[in-house]
Amino acid sequence: MSSPLRIGCLVFPRVTQLDLTGPVQVFSSVPGAEVHLIWKRIEPVPSDSVLTLTPTTTFADCPQLDVICVPGGFGTDALVNDEEVLDFLRKQAAGAKYVTSVCTGSLVLGATGLLKGYRAATHWSATEVLALFGATPTRTRVCIDRNRITGGGVTAGIDFALTLVSILVDRTMAEAIQLRLEYNPAPPFNAGSPETAPAEVLALMKERIAPSQARRIEAAKRAAARVM
Amino acid sequence: MSSPLRIGCLVFPRVTQLDLTGPVQVFSSVPGAEVHLIWKRIEPVPSDSVLTLTPTTTFADCPQLDVICVPGGFGTDALVNDEEVLDFLRKQAAGAKYVTSVCTGSLVLGATGLLKGYRAATHWSATEVLALFGATPTRTRVCIDRNRITGGGVTAGIDFALTLVSILVDRTMAEAIQLRLEYNPAPPFNAGSPETAPAEVLALMKERIAPSQARRIEAAKRAAARVM
Repeated sequence: MSSPLRIGCLVFPRVTQLDLTGPVQVFSSVPGAEVHLIWKRIEPVPSDSVLTLTPTTTFADCPQLDVICVPGGFGTDALVNDEEVLDFLRKQAAGAKYVTSVCTGSLVLGATGLLKGYRAATHWSATEVLALFGATPTRTRVCIDRNRITGGGVTAGIDFALTLVSILVDRTMAEAIQLRLEYNPAPPFNAGSPETAPAEVLALMKERIAPSQARRIEAAKRAAARVM
Repeated sequence: MSSPLRIGCLVFPRVTQLDLTGPVQVFSSVPGAEVHLIWKRIEPVPSDSVLTLTPTTTFADCPQLDVICVPGGFGTDALVNDEEVLDFLRKQAAGAKYVTSVCTGSLVLGATGLLKGYRAATHWSATEVLALFGATPTRTRVCIDRNRITGGGVTAGIDFALTLVSILVDRTMAEAIQLRLEYNPAPPFNAGSPETAPAEVLALMKERIAPSQARRIEAAKRAAARVM
């Protein structure tokens, strides 16, 4: 591993910002870690919410990373067919110690071909799409298969990042960060997964995401045709 | 409540970005909600991490909000003695339906005098400091006392925001957002509170925060002298 430890997260239009900001909070808490936010250009990028994200470096200027991390969101539909993005990820992955994602960021890794034959996690709504890339989807918060470490949907990014810190540094460091972030969750409801959500809430959500789901499948099929 | 629902979060230098970005992800998922990121000026503001935050409006331009929310972080030391900030919060609070905070954002609310005689939550390391402002600190993830709704440390902001959405809209909406964010947490370790963290991790963290803790108490005492 390089010294300092170099962790880079992709930033892109319509990223689900919490996929990124959760892990960034954890990674930034590692003393001496260098955290990069990377995009094609240095200009601020709109997230999926009111938050604008400012990259700290570009594909061209980014140093070789120890960890490359791809967050998810609706913006991944464009990324899975964007050769400039996929090339950057393939080049970084070749030299990185860990190749990682949160949520539907795994679809982008899938589109690079880097998850073929690997188990991987993703957002609950994207497991079948992930399989198009030759990955074996798992329904866990964090999935470790050799040097591919992938997190489930959105908030799983926090569990993912703490797990990764325990691997990169040690368990005590991960626990200290967990304590600092008071990560002692107490969700007020029990609707955080399709298995526990009330049936009508799951039905509502499936109806609401149906149009974006169709676009996601369409984009992934085109991407998968190139790498499979 | 106004239509659209107007939720405003304070942005400031050295904010703990996850205190803000967790709730913002939840609030932005409410269809039709208007989420504002507010600071004195419109220029980007450095957070506690590599992330730069771009305000969407200024104190002068911000409309009357239904919900005003103050996140925490080291930057609150400056805020508790910043009359421009405290005046803005007092004015908004007078017309807002809910006056809220995450983490040490409660110290800033305390410095406005708005928590005198109220129960309130804060980061585990700040409970005694919060008491300087006449509040009764609670060790819960979310504390509701009349129209003051306060969250505990950092990640408690997600529990806080889901709770608030269930009050502002309804439980089904909060559950749908929880499902979308796959908020089904599975922390890899059990170190998220002083009660559960290994003794050596708690000791390490207390040692590490001692200098900032001293600054926090100093700032809060000066602020409390004005409102108490």
